[in-house]
Amino acid sequence: MRRRGVDVSDVERVEGGRTFFWHGEYGWDLNSRETIDTQLGVFEGFQPKLSEGSRSSDVLFLANIQPELQHDVRAQLPDARFVALDSMNLWIDIARDSLVRAIGSVDCVILNDAELRQLTGKPNLVSAAREVLSWPATTGMRGPSVIVAKQGEYGAALVTAEGFFALPAYPLETVIDPTGAGDTFAGGLVGYIAAHPGAELSEELLRRAMAHATVLASFNVEEFGTERVERLTGKEIVARMKELHAMTQFSGAPLQLRG
Amino acid sequence: MRRRGVDVSDVERVEGGRTFFWHGEYGWDLNSRETIDTQLGVFEGFQPKLSEGSRSSDVLFLANIQPELQHDVRAQLPDARFVALDSMNLWIDIARDSLVRAIGSVDCVILNDAELRQLTGKPNLVSAAREVLSWPATTGMRGPSVIVAKQGEYGAALVTAEGFFALPAYPLETVIDPTGAGDTFAGGLVGYIAAHPGAELSEELLRRAMAHATVLASFNVEEFGTERVERLTGKEIVARMKELHAMTQFSGAPLQLRG
Repeated sequence: MRRRGVDVSDVERVEGGRTFFWHGEYGWDLNSRETIDTQLGVFEGFQPKLSEGSRSSDVLFLANIQPELQHDVRAQLPDARFVALDSMNLWIDIARDSLVRAIGSVDCVILNDAELRQLTGKPNLVSAAREVLSWPATTGMRGPSVIVAKQGEYGAALVTAEGFFALPAYPLETVIDPTGAGDTFAGGLVGYIAAHPGAELSEELLRRAMAHATVLASFNVEEFGTERVERLTGKEIVARMKELHAMTQFSGAPLQLRG
Repeated sequence: MRRRGVDVSDVERVEGGRTFFWHGEYGWDLNSRETIDTQLGVFEGFQPKLSEGSRSSDVLFLANIQPELQHDVRAQLPDARFVALDSMNLWIDIARDSLVRAIGSVDCVILNDAELRQLTGKPNLVSAAREVLSWPATTGMRGPSVIVAKQGEYGAALVTAEGFFALPAYPLETVIDPTGAGDTFAGGLVGYIAAHPGAELSEELLRRAMAHATVLASFNVEEFGTERVERLTGKEIVARMKELHAMTQFSGAPLQLRG
């Protein structure tokens, strides 16, 4: 990670404990998965301690963990210009109030579409997303203003006050391991915004970030674990973004007929 | 239908029988449905009799029915320039060989993505579509050369020898009745090609046909049965195609940074 320019100085090593462990089984078409075993290990007592450098970051991604921890970390970066949050069904089930409070403190929520429905009780994805977008007006909290619904092999949708955008997943004939695709997607999205500090947080930038996220996730599932992403190059990402662009374009102009 | 310029002269009235009847229940998010009762009625002994006018059509859509009937009708229009076929899991289960023969005689197959996986035994959608595209080379039959995978609320994908295209469904906050959305989609796709007799059957035309199909299906689900489609205007379709276009576009060019 250091070779890639990632600052890992805040990573904490805990003696005498084990790392997080997950054991699951994917369905035939990889669209469903069943958890067989989860062991939190040292993650159970995790209390993030942020260095001064981390606290001055202008972009923050709160990956899926207890909403209280997400809220605590978020509070340590009051001046961040863009904060995104991921979560999961578990926290909607057992810590919904904390999750809603954490969501109120961020700009962007990234969830699976089924989780968005569960969170809001609204079976319709657009209604569910608009419901979460309406929370700031009723709670007086900062956000969110951007909702991203992950849809697995079907791609992802972006809902903001300005409108709706949807992108299919990059089509692959060989999917080896979908584990971590959602995390890679979120990292690709937030990372794209972090990499453009001079750019306005426009619908246009968010759409490009969605494409970047989609492409990163597509590489991640091609091999086991992080194997493919470890040796991924910027050139490969740009090439696949161009391919994805070509796969989603059609002419909106009236058709010219021959003869 | 006559008011809309539809030629219904080949519609056959059978005495003493009942029309087709279907009773089903949709799941909470409308993404799944359970059939409670199906009564074929007069459809059970249906033997399509085509007039000379119908036999001279240059575009043919074989809606979902026994594959043998589809093959018989297709044989009555040997000179049609574009023939599309829809089917369902039932025929894959009980009449796979007949279905494969019918598919070999058409240009375009329109199926739900789960049905494409079932038909080919391939869990990956792209592999499944490419498998069906490879059949003409091994069987010496005419087709197919175009595969359309319907994905319900997630949209639809188009796979040809030239490439891959995917389009999200038009996002709706109010979905009243998804019954017939797949048929409306197929009709919208094939109808668009029929309405452009002078146009080459290009990837570009197929992509526009996909957008037209997506828009028609979106109107269909907004009200019960055919209520909404009955009073649909061309102007409304064009307006929604423009909206769908705006919802799917992003810039593939490198981002210009401010400052």
